[in-house]
Amino acid sequence: MKIDVYATLNSVQEKELKESIVVVVDVLRASSTIITALYNGCREVIPTIEIEEAIRLAKNYEKDTLLLGGERNAQKIDGFDLSNSPSEYTREVVEGRTILITTTNGTRAIKKANDAKEVIIGGFLNAGVVSQYIGQLDENVAFLCAGTEGKFSLDDILAVGAIIEGLEIMDIELDMDDLALVCRHVYRTYKEDLTRVLKATYHYRNLLEVGYVKDVDDCIRLNAIPIVPIYQDGVISIIEKNT
Amino acid sequence: MKIDVYATLNSVQEKELKESIVVVVDVLRASSTIITALYNGCREVIPTIEIEEAIRLAKNYEKDTLLLGGERNAQKIDGFDLSNSPSEYTREVVEGRTILITTTNGTRAIKKANDAKEVIIGGFLNAGVVSQYIGQLDENVAFLCAGTEGKFSLDDILAVGAIIEGLEIMDIELDMDDLALVCRHVYRTYKEDLTRVLKATYHYRNLLEVGYVKDVDDCIRLNAIPIVPIYQDGVISIIEKNT
Repeated sequence: MKIDVYATLNSVQEKELKESIVVVVDVLRASSTIITALYNGCREVIPTIEIEEAIRLAKNYEKDTLLLGGERNAQKIDGFDLSNSPSEYTREVVEGRTILITTTNGTRAIKKANDAKEVIIGGFLNAGVVSQYIGQLDENVAFLCAGTEGKFSLDDILAVGAIIEGLEIMDIELDMDDLALVCRHVYRTYKEDLTRVLKATYHYRNLLEVGYVKDVDDCIRLNAIPIVPIYQDGVISIIEKNT
Repeated sequence: MKIDVYATLNSVQEKELKESIVVVVDVLRASSTIITALYNGCREVIPTIEIEEAIRLAKNYEKDTLLLGGERNAQKIDGFDLSNSPSEYTREVVEGRTILITTTNGTRAIKKANDAKEVIIGGFLNAGVVSQYIGQLDENVAFLCAGTEGKFSLDDILAVGAIIEGLEIMDIELDMDDLALVCRHVYRTYKEDLTRVLKATYHYRNLLEVGYVKDVDDCIRLNAIPIVPIYQDGVISIIEKNT
């Protein structure tokens, strides 16, 4: 299985992803928020790049069936129901509803993978089941990390390492690019101590500043949520079993 | 000292480099070739992006004062004197001459850093003196790795790690971005065994295929060539002592 990893949106072009299963990884926090929302029973998540697009699409829904979520500069968007904090996406809030979400990096990454063979949303929360799911496919896999403000972001790299580690445990022969090798190595080194290493990162310090640092603990709970979200025809939903 | 690392050309915009000292790193092989050529007494190295530009500029020189060097697809360019293999840039061949060089990634990276405060060429060969040089400046430092075919390339990452390690030994307080942390970590892990880890990389296998694998040993000789090449006004030359 060929494994390519892209650390940021700008490090890949859409056409390079066309022949692959793409796993979009934005640990802090879009991936983790989407996984949490779907686990807590939301009907579907619809990612948009622009705020205006989310507001426009919202008009097609009955008010109480829809929630607007996301962030700009890590903060809740004016007039939106929810920020990009997984802790807000509880069952009480999201069950049965459609969520329109727009974030700085994560939703852009999902959209960038639009033409791929299949698009999966991955993170620490669902690393194990993502490994199992892609492991049973005989396809090239590309991990597209959202990065932070256009830069290489260690939280995403570590989560990719966790998913690659899962593939190795399944004894799948991997043909890894250089960044995949690094992801695996860094994850193996730090897996017992993710919080400590993440505390040195830019993204952590950024979330600390804006008051969302508790989210980090929520986002790095390895295998806490065993679902595989798939993005198809503009909509993210939970992959059906036995597909 | 703020340290940012960019793994590929596309992961940074020119304007982001303006306020920094930029260290361009293309271990396999442009950095290593340029460092070797200057060490062996060539007058100066002039990087160009296009082959045609190199050929056009060559017309301004007396034939025996100039050499054309570089590669496309890792191979010597038709009509050029030298490929991109450091082993060809011996004292006998290069002494006193100007070298016009064009390579797929390395010379593009140098040109991309054009507007930076200062542009240094770094690699394993001169890691120690590059650390010493930038360590005595009170500036932000950005490492711009050339990458391989637009992708993250472990050879460059390890060399950046070696230079960062040198700064740490000087007890300089470093404010590192996430990729800088990874460079340092990966270098520390593998520094005793660079050849083995590089053998797993895409670039190594690529050079093996085209017959230049011996170059890898030449390019990873840590601190073998204690000079600091600087790119200024379109020309790369050795930095003068005491500047």
